[in-house]
Amino acid sequence: MSQPLRLGIAGLGTVGAGVVKIVRQKAALLTERSGREITITAVSARTRDKDRGVNLSHYAWEDDPVALATRDDVDVFVELMGGSDGPAKAAVEAALKAGKDVVTANKAMLAHHGQMLAELAEANGAVLRFEAAVAGGIPVIKALTEGLAGNDIQRVMGVMNGTCNYILTRMEDGGLTYEEAFAEADGLGYLEADPTLDVGGIDAGHKLSLLAAIAFGCKVDFDAVELEGIGKVAIDDIRQAADMGYRIKLLGVARMTGRGLEQTMTPCLVPAASPLGQLVGGTNMVVIEGDQVGQIVMRGAGAGEGPTASAVMGDVMDVARGLRVSTFGQAASSLKTCVPARSATPAPYYLRMALIDKPGALAKIATALGDSGVSINRMRQYDHVADAAPVLIVTHKTTRAALEAALEAMTATGVMVTEPVALRIENV
Amino acid sequence: MSQPLRLGIAGLGTVGAGVVKIVRQKAALLTERSGREITITAVSARTRDKDRGVNLSHYAWEDDPVALATRDDVDVFVELMGGSDGPAKAAVEAALKAGKDVVTANKAMLAHHGQMLAELAEANGAVLRFEAAVAGGIPVIKALTEGLAGNDIQRVMGVMNGTCNYILTRMEDGGLTYEEAFAEADGLGYLEADPTLDVGGIDAGHKLSLLAAIAFGCKVDFDAVELEGIGKVAIDDIRQAADMGYRIKLLGVARMTGRGLEQTMTPCLVPAASPLGQLVGGTNMVVIEGDQVGQIVMRGAGAGEGPTASAVMGDVMDVARGLRVSTFGQAASSLKTCVPARSATPAPYYLRMALIDKPGALAKIATALGDSGVSINRMRQYDHVADAAPVLIVTHKTTRAALEAALEAMTATGVMVTEPVALRIENV
Repeated sequence: MSQPLRLGIAGLGTVGAGVVKIVRQKAALLTERSGREITITAVSARTRDKDRGVNLSHYAWEDDPVALATRDDVDVFVELMGGSDGPAKAAVEAALKAGKDVVTANKAMLAHHGQMLAELAEANGAVLRFEAAVAGGIPVIKALTEGLAGNDIQRVMGVMNGTCNYILTRMEDGGLTYEEAFAEADGLGYLEADPTLDVGGIDAGHKLSLLAAIAFGCKVDFDAVELEGIGKVAIDDIRQAADMGYRIKLLGVARMTGRGLEQTMTPCLVPAASPLGQLVGGTNMVVIEGDQVGQIVMRGAGAGEGPTASAVMGDVMDVARGLRVSTFGQAASSLKTCVPARSATPAPYYLRMALIDKPGALAKIATALGDSGVSINRMRQYDHVADAAPVLIVTHKTTRAALEAALEAMTATGVMVTEPVALRIENV
Repeated sequence: MSQPLRLGIAGLGTVGAGVVKIVRQKAALLTERSGREITITAVSARTRDKDRGVNLSHYAWEDDPVALATRDDVDVFVELMGGSDGPAKAAVEAALKAGKDVVTANKAMLAHHGQMLAELAEANGAVLRFEAAVAGGIPVIKALTEGLAGNDIQRVMGVMNGTCNYILTRMEDGGLTYEEAFAEADGLGYLEADPTLDVGGIDAGHKLSLLAAIAFGCKVDFDAVELEGIGKVAIDDIRQAADMGYRIKLLGVARMTGRGLEQTMTPCLVPAASPLGQLVGGTNMVVIEGDQVGQIVMRGAGAGEGPTASAVMGDVMDVARGLRVSTFGQAASSLKTCVPARSATPAPYYLRMALIDKPGALAKIATALGDSGVSINRMRQYDHVADAAPVLIVTHKTTRAALEAALEAMTATGVMVTEPVALRIENV
């Protein structure tokens, strides 16, 4: 049998403790499957004295994750600290420079520094794996990088922030306002310390940028992701969407077009009967479309101790078995700098607005849309509420540019009481 | 760059031709991803003169697949002939003995000879991969073997025969009888040459036995799979199930119990709103439940040129990248001989019967059930049809043994007009 594989784990929160538990409790199973013993030699965290529900006394303690990452008795540096920069990045860089393999769950770090770190790994003959960074326990990085490697990928989509999906689900099934559902999620501990990461779509955007890099062979370009959070989604939108057979999801879509790479992470309407529309609560879903395979849908828990630790262990087992794949599925030096394209793939849009209570108001809106080349598929006007008439429009397929011109022209008519809500409809 | 990886492909049906197309048309992409050129050196099929929509003139032709498998200029033998024995098995054995890696889509061969072939691969330092053998384009072998390797697997389930699912879907949405739906599927070319492989559950049973071997570290034991085809499912069952919020699927379930390994491939009722219940037409779905990851659901095309060729290419790309995993995820010699257990995990059952039109008939049935310890959850009696009263019973959870005792007692009452239908309800 080969030498044991020795892990150094930095970050002992829920996921870190979960990984320690698996390594301890499943030693025989892991050895049987990988052909070698998997051990932990050293650990590191911010505070040493804290009950993490797991016995750490057998492992060396390092206050400094960089020191941990470069220990002679560590083969794989497991980075579970988080944060795009600071100690996590410093320690990962140190590990890679020392030729150590790295397994991380850190989407923010990879979204911002993925290309640099992939190059560093390559230059030092190390692997850098990150299954746990995207969609929790769903082995989607592996599926996309390896299982579907014979495909030209056409589109990757995902609902990858369980907190947002929880809030949107509660707004629909509990009739809660956004603020009430947000407070409920907060009370349950679902929100990041900075909730903007969740509800602003940033966390999910990080994940999308990593999937896009693999799918299209591009350097990670998180800055090019068009981000829109769920904060503007009103209970009215949830209801109207449901009424028309849709659900609202914070949906990431990446696709390569003739104009360049589109990456959007925005609230969208999806058909209620589609797999994405059926997704409720904190569950994640990733949809991959390839020219050969057609549509592959993967669903599972997007967060939590067990699922995330499962993904970390998947990467650790790969390293133990000697399975070494380039970070983004091809040599880092061969990754292209893809031109970012503002989303311009024509799509139908959902528009909700309130019009002033005067004759001809609706006609002016219809004219503004028509003049901008946006054609109306369905329109509904409801009973006046406080001197304003709620109006709902579903357009035929149109470009984002045409829609924005139309929204400007609509505003210029002076008949809209508030800013209109515009959400893309993604047919999946 | 490494040496080219040279494929020898035996079997040039739809899938074989699809693989040739991908290798030719995506040469640059495959090389970029794997770091080496992937070429085809030789091919083999039953008939040489046949238009397969792809130019084969660049490749050596071998009439004998064994000769192909052992050519010096072949690194990977790609077996796409099918058949559990005969030329496919002979050629795969020859390839492995010659130290060639093998990629195959042949579930029947692996279900019957998987252990022997895995040992042969191991003894010769070769890998034997079979992603395309299970659930078409869904990269489920990889997910289970690698991505979820840190889990104790608790249950694996799957709808893995698209033809059966198509027939059952058409019975429900088209109101067709089994015979009509079967004829429609036949007309569309969906059925195997021997349709029993499909509708008898054998093909899906082969796939289940392969998943079970990986999930539980057991030697493949197809003979222990409890098989029941869909031939006895009547339109009445489809309707009654729908009426109670269920759909009928040919569902495979493998789970390890204290009594041994349960493997069943039988028509089951699943909740209509569950992911399995939502599956319509020829699509496949595999559900994997692990102690860490919870439930992972994977969905995609289960057959067809592109999806199956995609899976074959996933394995080829693994070999090209030097990713070498044991056939069933651990050393062949370490796979256990698992005790097969007749399914005895308690489950609710759906029973449909027709009773003679006499007072006390229903009471006798209820008594027979009660005396066997089977308790009734729901019961419905419908209007008499031709002197017989259709009766529908949903039991509380009971064992298969208790149910069979009850069915015997029910038959002994003499009040049943025909043999009753009993289908397990699998809550997923």
